[in-house]
Amino acid sequence: MEEAQLLDGRYVAGQIHRETMEAVQRLRRKGILPCVVFIRVGNHPPSELYVRMKQKKAQEVGIQSEVISFPEDVSQKEVLDNLNRLNLDPSIHGILVQLPLPSHLSEKQIALAINPKKDIDGFHPLNLGKMLLGEKDCFYPCTPLGIQELLKRYKIEIEGKEVVILGRSNIVGKPLAALFLQKSKYANATVTVVHSFSQNIKEHCRQADILIAAMGKARFVTRDFVKPKAVVVDVGVSRIADSSSPQGYRIVGDVDFDEIKKIASWITPNPGGVGPMTIAMLLANTVKAAELSQP
Amino acid sequence: MEEAQLLDGRYVAGQIHRETMEAVQRLRRKGILPCVVFIRVGNHPPSELYVRMKQKKAQEVGIQSEVISFPEDVSQKEVLDNLNRLNLDPSIHGILVQLPLPSHLSEKQIALAINPKKDIDGFHPLNLGKMLLGEKDCFYPCTPLGIQELLKRYKIEIEGKEVVILGRSNIVGKPLAALFLQKSKYANATVTVVHSFSQNIKEHCRQADILIAAMGKARFVTRDFVKPKAVVVDVGVSRIADSSSPQGYRIVGDVDFDEIKKIASWITPNPGGVGPMTIAMLLANTVKAAELSQP
Repeated sequence: MEEAQLLDGRYVAGQIHRETMEAVQRLRRKGILPCVVFIRVGNHPPSELYVRMKQKKAQEVGIQSEVISFPEDVSQKEVLDNLNRLNLDPSIHGILVQLPLPSHLSEKQIALAINPKKDIDGFHPLNLGKMLLGEKDCFYPCTPLGIQELLKRYKIEIEGKEVVILGRSNIVGKPLAALFLQKSKYANATVTVVHSFSQNIKEHCRQADILIAAMGKARFVTRDFVKPKAVVVDVGVSRIADSSSPQGYRIVGDVDFDEIKKIASWITPNPGGVGPMTIAMLLANTVKAAELSQP
Repeated sequence: MEEAQLLDGRYVAGQIHRETMEAVQRLRRKGILPCVVFIRVGNHPPSELYVRMKQKKAQEVGIQSEVISFPEDVSQKEVLDNLNRLNLDPSIHGILVQLPLPSHLSEKQIALAINPKKDIDGFHPLNLGKMLLGEKDCFYPCTPLGIQELLKRYKIEIEGKEVVILGRSNIVGKPLAALFLQKSKYANATVTVVHSFSQNIKEHCRQADILIAAMGKARFVTRDFVKPKAVVVDVGVSRIADSSSPQGYRIVGDVDFDEIKKIASWITPNPGGVGPMTIAMLLANTVKAAELSQP
């Protein structure tokens, strides 16, 4: 039997990076230098790594970037004061606060304090509400947007298809449902969201033309969850112990790739699928912010 | 065979009105007089009727109300200037702009111009975004909220159930999906949204434990759409010609009530189901706005 084809997020992200680079050059010719500020708090090695990766990619496409690192015990007020300053600074187009934050800080209040016009993560409720309404002059969260873009570039039809989303997080499941049920191109899907309280999870998944696994449960989706020839997108990121790896762990997704590639028509590798798309959309959002900032 | 029991929106709305009246009295004892302003534009008899009904109900529960009626050709700026004044006036807790508006006005811009803390309709994108995130310090749209409340008062279980929503409007389908998939009491459902682009609409509907029809297509949902013992909620409002009626038309819902009451376990009458609940939640939201306005 034929194996599933790969939805190669690394490859598509590379294409998008080149397009972003061209858009940055056009803006620079008009005298606009897109600029993003990353905010980090405390010592959290994965956050440091993520910010470094994002900054490196921003640099590659010609976006100026700055990292503000606060000590672990920074006060809410200090973070908010800095956000206010950045919100008002016209030379800064995008602001990203790397999550998670220490527990004494309110992620909710901090997300609300970012100028929605600079909210390149698309986490501000104003942007999420506009997305739910189908508006375009706003920022959509990067992972849902990256999944849509990945399917679009591989000409996977979404309209009228059965899309089943496993998981209802605020950064993936819920906004992805909002995105895919819109009356618009590359959407218009019949969307079902299943989660920990759902009964018949497997039966729902088996009805999916496009199955998106975003629960964060290592290899939850096994072969019997997938309809033959379905399109399978794996958003999950879990660490499992692996003594053969130098770090002692390895990253696995929500999908049992080796089994499911035998029956799906398309499948994302993980890593190398949704992850690179998320960063690509973050930089695309930064360019959009710079473009929209012009009167 | 036993007939479906009625989800009597008029009766439950009456209960809620009494509770709202008590809440208003508590606020008045603290020196707060809840006040709502209704804004109307032009001559549109159904809008006039809706505003009159809302004002009458507000009056009954002790909420002060005011109606501002603009001529058909009012400018966007005049509406926005008035909204700004009302937004800043601390004696006004709720603002409602009756839709639809004449085509020269931007409903989108006007919705955005209402102070989200006075947005008792729950149509401001900030409130919709907060709802999607599962936050509580905000206003949810009245029809979805009224449906949830109606099911709750009749002790219809929602958690873990298959909820199928027919229709994806910005005021019913989309926010209702957002509401029912939250990780919270009276939610936690497996939610599917079907719409004009969906295939297998009937098959989806037949899987619903709770079927919510909000397409606005007269009697679209016939007997073969409904699983025996399902709960059926009819949100639709369509006019059909009826020479026996004094107006020459009558209002029918999306559901073929007479047939479906024979197989459902619970069903909303229409009228008398979701409609009265919507107004009840509007007034409950007004009281919430007055309560939240206190420091």
